[in-house]
Amino acid sequence: MAAILDRVNRGRLEAFSDGVIAILVTIMVLNLRPPAGDSFGDLRPLVPKLLVYVLSFVMLAIYWNNHHHLMTVVERIDGRVLWANMGLLFCLSLMPIATAWLGPNWRASGPALAYGLVLLAAAIAYFILTVQLLRIHAADSRLAVAIGRDWKGRLSLVAYVVALLAAIVAPLVAIAIYIGVAVVWLVPDRRIERVTVDRAGPPG
Amino acid sequence: MAAILDRVNRGRLEAFSDGVIAILVTIMVLNLRPPAGDSFGDLRPLVPKLLVYVLSFVMLAIYWNNHHHLMTVVERIDGRVLWANMGLLFCLSLMPIATAWLGPNWRASGPALAYGLVLLAAAIAYFILTVQLLRIHAADSRLAVAIGRDWKGRLSLVAYVVALLAAIVAPLVAIAIYIGVAVVWLVPDRRIERVTVDRAGPPG
Amino acid sequence: MAAILDRVNRGRLEAFSDGVIAILVTIMVLNLRPPAGDSFGDLRPLVPKLLVYVLSFVMLAIYWNNHHHLMTVVERIDGRVLWANMGLLFCLSLMPIATAWLGPNWRASGPALAYGLVLLAAAIAYFILTVQLLRIHAADSRLAVAIGRDWKGRLSLVAYVVALLAAIVAPLVAIAIYIGVAVVWLVPDRRIERVTVDRAGPPG
Amino acid sequence: MAAILDRVNRGRLEAFSDGVIAILVTIMVLNLRPPAGDSFGDLRPLVPKLLVYVLSFVMLAIYWNNHHHLMTVVERIDGRVLWANMGLLFCLSLMPIATAWLGPNWRASGPALAYGLVLLAAAIAYFILTVQLLRIHAADSRLAVAIGRDWKGRLSLVAYVVALLAAIVAPLVAIAIYIGVAVVWLVPDRRIERVTVDRAGPPG
Repeated sequence: MAAILDRVNRGRLEAFSDGVIAILVTIMVLNLRPPAGDSFGDLRPLVPKLLVYVLSFVMLAIYWNNHHHLMTVVERIDGRVLWANMGLLFCLSLMPIATAWLGPNWRASGPALAYGLVLLAAAIAYFILTVQLLRIHAADSRLAVAIGRDWKGRLSLVAYVVALLAAIVAPLVAIAIYIGVAVVWLVPDRRIERVTVDRAGPPG
Repeated sequence: MAAILDRVNRGRLEAFSDGVIAILVTIMVLNLRPPAGDSFGDLRPLVPKLLVYVLSFVMLAIYWNNHHHLMTVVERIDGRVLWANMGLLFCLSLMPIATAWLGPNWRASGPALAYGLVLLAAAIAYFILTVQLLRIHAADSRLAVAIGRDWKGRLSLVAYVVALLAAIVAPLVAIAIYIGVAVVWLVPDRRIERVTVDRAGPPG
Repeated sequence: MAAILDRVNRGRLEAFSDGVIAILVTIMVLNLRPPAGDSFGDLRPLVPKLLVYVLSFVMLAIYWNNHHHLMTVVERIDGRVLWANMGLLFCLSLMPIATAWLGPNWRASGPALAYGLVLLAAAIAYFILTVQLLRIHAADSRLAVAIGRDWKGRLSLVAYVVALLAAIVAPLVAIAIYIGVAVVWLVPDRRIERVTVDRAGPPG
Repeated sequence: MAAILDRVNRGRLEAFSDGVIAILVTIMVLNLRPPAGDSFGDLRPLVPKLLVYVLSFVMLAIYWNNHHHLMTVVERIDGRVLWANMGLLFCLSLMPIATAWLGPNWRASGPALAYGLVLLAAAIAYFILTVQLLRIHAADSRLAVAIGRDWKGRLSLVAYVVALLAAIVAPLVAIAIYIGVAVVWLVPDRRIERVTVDRAGPPG
């Protein structure tokens, strides 16, 4: 009964998170307005906006991907997990405005700083979510094994802090660091994938 | 058969409600426009808008959370429950415009009054939803036990009425009351959580 | 196997339809912009927009409700059903723009005509969807019994045609007819509810 | 266990894809703004925008439909499939802006070219998704049989390249080719439907 209940709860938590992330991914594109002219060259000013959109899309896709992998090993959730998850969604909901500001102003310090702060806040919120999940899972649970030392999460936090400092003097360095973090995360979370496969037996 | 049918119905009701709430939470962020300038200080005028967004995000998250907890103990739904739920979603759908108006005008009476009216309408709609659910559940059902006396719901209604009166002369007092109600609700509905755990046995 | 496959298909069709309708319901509210001023009286010009929004919200809710009831008795779907459903969603997707035009121009013929055309198109699309479903269900299937003579659907079609003619000379009469149709449909589809209950036995 | 896990994974991948496509379909309609005037004739300038919207709606519906049919024969997914799917969603997310540009500028080369590039990118992304799926399915799996030679996919790629060349000198020819491709795809993927039915036995 408890297991079924938790599956229902987890299912609805996932569905809600999916909904919010799917909408965030999509409304970012509303900031890409078609050019006033009608020649192909008029698209040129859109290029930096499009590239920043790609970066934000990848970042949100990484969060969806990691959230998805994390949830497959979650055995139960409670009120605090729900709220930690809401905190993560709130931080991610600031991505569209940070993206809209950075797009046309990618050479300025302010938008690079704001973008990094949103990324840092989301990373901290994700960390809090894992802490809240570990609190209600056994030390030898698949979740605990899967999360393990979380070097990627810690590395990201350090990288974002460095990027924020860099943003003040060299915004492009900050953006390069954001891209670097995305590349590191782009590989789906092997820790969890390994555990899943080990427990589930070889696919096939 | 009836039970299966009701699970299907309930599932789709939840999915639709989740979809609407997820979209409402997200489109509120569309009202946060990036500043015209590119220095970090240009974000300052966004601060009150961001704070009102936080309040509205928390309010919608509370409704999602309570709706989620409520639905876990629902055994059946009918046409009137569907429409009561639609009424709730309609009231919540006015949150984005109320938020967009209050954000930059948080010192004025009008927006504080409108924001409170939307909150009051949503609270009444939620109350009607519980009444419609109680109508088709036994007096000793998990739902009936879980809802119990609903002191929080009643307290909120009283608080909103007081806040509406306060808004006319002191908008900030009204906003303080809205925040206070959010804090009271922030704790997930222990009444229902307790029943769920009691019937389900200890987790694990 | 076929049954399971159809349940999966039906589930995803419902989920997609729910998603689209949930978004349509919600983005209509984006057309309600907060007033420029900050006094409560500044909301007055919003009143007609809000009332038209209520009507459109109810119309979309009716479609969701009827779609929901219809799907509970569907046993299988095929490609043509999928496309008939897409046709319905397309027609419904024109509700936001029709609503945005009618809101501030409720005394003019053009918007009342356009609004009615969208409603008529949606009603025809829903009718086509039921025809496509009946094609692949037995004459004594729960679906066929539930749809029956569909006097409401036919009445709506006639009412919309009358309303379109009325819109040319008296837009308010057309709007009154739209409201009348909504009231008739507001009661959830008893035909299907009756069949569902008969087959499922009394609830409880 | 692996099968259950994959069903869960597949389910959430489908739900996320459905969410994104449902939102894309719907936000395209935000670019259809109501006319400034209030006479029915004021809708005339909207006609080309509406027709381009119909084309884009059909294109996205085709992708949803094909994605839906494809997923019913998928037995497992992995990280690379998730990312190939994200790539497809990214390409599709550019449809609204391409639609918004082509709508009022359907006689110009630039928008026809941009629209075609988005369609080509989406077609390539879908092809990559099938390649990634085939990589982890047996040569005699239902998926492999269902995809088969994929002459429609190859034809589309060739057609889009031809259309892009045509767009430079004759945008209307390019648009005609886009419409032609849509018509070819409009029929749901019989390859997969046939396999599904064969394996599942006759419906009924």
